[in-house]
Amino acid sequence: MAIKMKYVFAVNFKSYETAYNNVAVEIAKTASQLSSKYNNVRIILSVPSVMINKLVNIYDDIYLQHVDPLDYGAYTGYLSVDSLKYLEVKGSLVNHSEHKIVYRDIEKIVKKMNGLNKESLVCADTAGEAAGIAYLNPSMIAVEPPELIGSGIPVSKAKPEIITESVNAVKKISDIPVLAGAGITVPDDAIKAIELGSSGVLIASAVMKAKDPNKVVIDFVEKMNSI
Amino acid sequence: MAIKMKYVFAVNFKSYETAYNNVAVEIAKTASQLSSKYNNVRIILSVPSVMINKLVNIYDDIYLQHVDPLDYGAYTGYLSVDSLKYLEVKGSLVNHSEHKIVYRDIEKIVKKMNGLNKESLVCADTAGEAAGIAYLNPSMIAVEPPELIGSGIPVSKAKPEIITESVNAVKKISDIPVLAGAGITVPDDAIKAIELGSSGVLIASAVMKAKDPNKVVIDFVEKMNSI
Amino acid sequence: MAIKMKYVFAVNFKSYETAYNNVAVEIAKTASQLSSKYNNVRIILSVPSVMINKLVNIYDDIYLQHVDPLDYGAYTGYLSVDSLKYLEVKGSLVNHSEHKIVYRDIEKIVKKMNGLNKESLVCADTAGEAAGIAYLNPSMIAVEPPELIGSGIPVSKAKPEIITESVNAVKKISDIPVLAGAGITVPDDAIKAIELGSSGVLIASAVMKAKDPNKVVIDFVEKMNSI
Amino acid sequence: MAIKMKYVFAVNFKSYETAYNNVAVEIAKTASQLSSKYNNVRIILSVPSVMINKLVNIYDDIYLQHVDPLDYGAYTGYLSVDSLKYLEVKGSLVNHSEHKIVYRDIEKIVKKMNGLNKESLVCADTAGEAAGIAYLNPSMIAVEPPELIGSGIPVSKAKPEIITESVNAVKKISDIPVLAGAGITVPDDAIKAIELGSSGVLIASAVMKAKDPNKVVIDFVEKMNSI
Repeated sequence: MAIKMKYVFAVNFKSYETAYNNVAVEIAKTASQLSSKYNNVRIILSVPSVMINKLVNIYDDIYLQHVDPLDYGAYTGYLSVDSLKYLEVKGSLVNHSEHKIVYRDIEKIVKKMNGLNKESLVCADTAGEAAGIAYLNPSMIAVEPPELIGSGIPVSKAKPEIITESVNAVKKISDIPVLAGAGITVPDDAIKAIELGSSGVLIASAVMKAKDPNKVVIDFVEKMNSI
Repeated sequence: MAIKMKYVFAVNFKSYETAYNNVAVEIAKTASQLSSKYNNVRIILSVPSVMINKLVNIYDDIYLQHVDPLDYGAYTGYLSVDSLKYLEVKGSLVNHSEHKIVYRDIEKIVKKMNGLNKESLVCADTAGEAAGIAYLNPSMIAVEPPELIGSGIPVSKAKPEIITESVNAVKKISDIPVLAGAGITVPDDAIKAIELGSSGVLIASAVMKAKDPNKVVIDFVEKMNSI
Repeated sequence: MAIKMKYVFAVNFKSYETAYNNVAVEIAKTASQLSSKYNNVRIILSVPSVMINKLVNIYDDIYLQHVDPLDYGAYTGYLSVDSLKYLEVKGSLVNHSEHKIVYRDIEKIVKKMNGLNKESLVCADTAGEAAGIAYLNPSMIAVEPPELIGSGIPVSKAKPEIITESVNAVKKISDIPVLAGAGITVPDDAIKAIELGSSGVLIASAVMKAKDPNKVVIDFVEKMNSI
Repeated sequence: MAIKMKYVFAVNFKSYETAYNNVAVEIAKTASQLSSKYNNVRIILSVPSVMINKLVNIYDDIYLQHVDPLDYGAYTGYLSVDSLKYLEVKGSLVNHSEHKIVYRDIEKIVKKMNGLNKESLVCADTAGEAAGIAYLNPSMIAVEPPELIGSGIPVSKAKPEIITESVNAVKKISDIPVLAGAGITVPDDAIKAIELGSSGVLIASAVMKAKDPNKVVIDFVEKMNSI
């Protein structure tokens, strides 16, 4: 599925305690209010599978964090990608740095999600990995150098070349938006990532481990909307 | 946590299409009605993670199918066992035949679940595996020879000795209820399993792939209640 | 490491019984004789790890089938890629269809092997996967559609476009030789694969499960040498 | 296979650099000399798969560190347990703390190895895991608390109860020798482990990372032989 909004602010809830308790609910409420107010930023919340039914009632742009490359069937404790047909999520992260899968599984998931009109945001460590993924035609690609994830050192400052190289490598193959992630801490990191050619950011600990997660979300979205 | 009800009828929804659509909802409604009516059978529904928030509003004895042996943290697309603190599930399957994990992971999960006052129903292929698991003090153990799962050939007929041996091996270590599973198709299979010393059955395809899943659930619960 | 010989005939012994017994020794002897006789074909034998010390005494162009993306250290039952420093093998298969690994592990292995002056023959299912791998600068890439492996239906006939597309996708990034594999059964399959732009073939069951494996090797090498 | 010698001194080479270079060869020579001289200690060297053919020519009591629960077949980069038929090793470690596998895979490996008259030394973290494994009738069981491995804090001092409990749990099921491992550093640690009921020790870093590995081996074997 093609993505239409100008810039993407994607929050990966991961499996922090805040992903499961009232903080998650509050972030969804904040996202809902901000989305009504600002038109130039799309906010995506990527939440634990057990939380989707609770959060889609509050905010409608919810992603899963992982789906399994499986049809329906006798699979216990796995989430068949086919099941997205019945789920009110917009899409899913795929191949996140903390949940790497092999290429053929990325391929199966993206293909099925495209068929179900669901979005796939596929992660890559490097421009080379991103290039291979671009051949699969996912909705978006997020490039995150693993050594910077959770570091507080923003990719847009520490490794700006990985953003430009990834954007260039992907564009050669297909016109897929590229997000930047890893170490994104303050709104200026997102602005910098956008200036480098990305279509937005994927963020996690800077929101989920913040003293005031809602304020972080507000600050990012306001700044990104003002570009 | 100790289990109190007489016999257990546990339905593993697996990842069949019926686990995600209206059939799942109907089974939960049926379970709710039957639980009010019959006192000698406990009905457990083990459902996909994405379905728990929808189904706990209908029926309160819901299990997950798998949890990950992780604390809270930067884990994308995993379900930290700690999160059960916030989830309205009664417990989870652990180490199902289709989702085998290593012993130390079973240990971590069961220990954490005991601490959270959540139930663990740990699966085993054989009496030997069940014996090792009994040392971990889970809420229940289910023994299922993998070659009979989904076969329509009930363990209670094809391998009755695996039930008696497992019950005996477990009882030597701790007084943990043992369920029987694999190939359970008709209510008499459950009765036979109980006569062999088990405390009930774990069933999947005979319900989830039935033409009339609710009828299968009703038939089993009525028969098991009448013992 | 750059590859110099004209065409490559790579035999993956896999874990067939013949990979461990006297057949393996006989194939190594045959390879040794053929290599002295024919100059236009390079024969690579990719053998089980336990066999390398026995076979390098007979034939010097031996590959492993897999190495682990590990430094030296407290890893039991893994083969640290660093150890190739001490092993008399020329290189290793990486990411074979039957042993898929994630992109970052391919990256670590290839980088280390390049540093050790060892060759890496990295496998891919598709042109897209091959393109991503090309960014890592391995010695060679082998493209094998998994559904044709062991099928007896040669990729060069059933899916010739996968060879041409892969060669084209790789050449855009780097000048890395591309082999074709899956279903290669008779010498003409190899000739066809070379005509389609590949630099040779990766073969397994057609040799290892043959009545007369040495004859198959001889037939292929003679035919490939005569191009 | 039943084990006959009095006390076992098993050295796990792991994947340290010394496992692949001349140190490995020297340890094998030392083991060969010591075995001729001392009758009360059996020395087992568990070495990387790529080293077995080199080391069996020097010393005949060689183990693998891991085998895969596979028959012969189209498995690339795996070591089918069936292949031990052709290998001059005495047996293999199974389920080491650094290479944990699920119960049914331990079962398949031990069963096949018993059928091939090869020995299996199966590792366990705890008495409970050891008890489950005892049902499979392996040649030996080694108990190693994972948190002490490589720590220099010997299990026989830090957690003596894990040795006695494991010996007791195993003996209830079958008369299988139990080794102790983790943090074993000096000969007295081995003596203590034997006094606690074990049949010997499994050691790694204290030998492989020593300044003079051969001296460590000699010191242990002399001391253990003198009991």
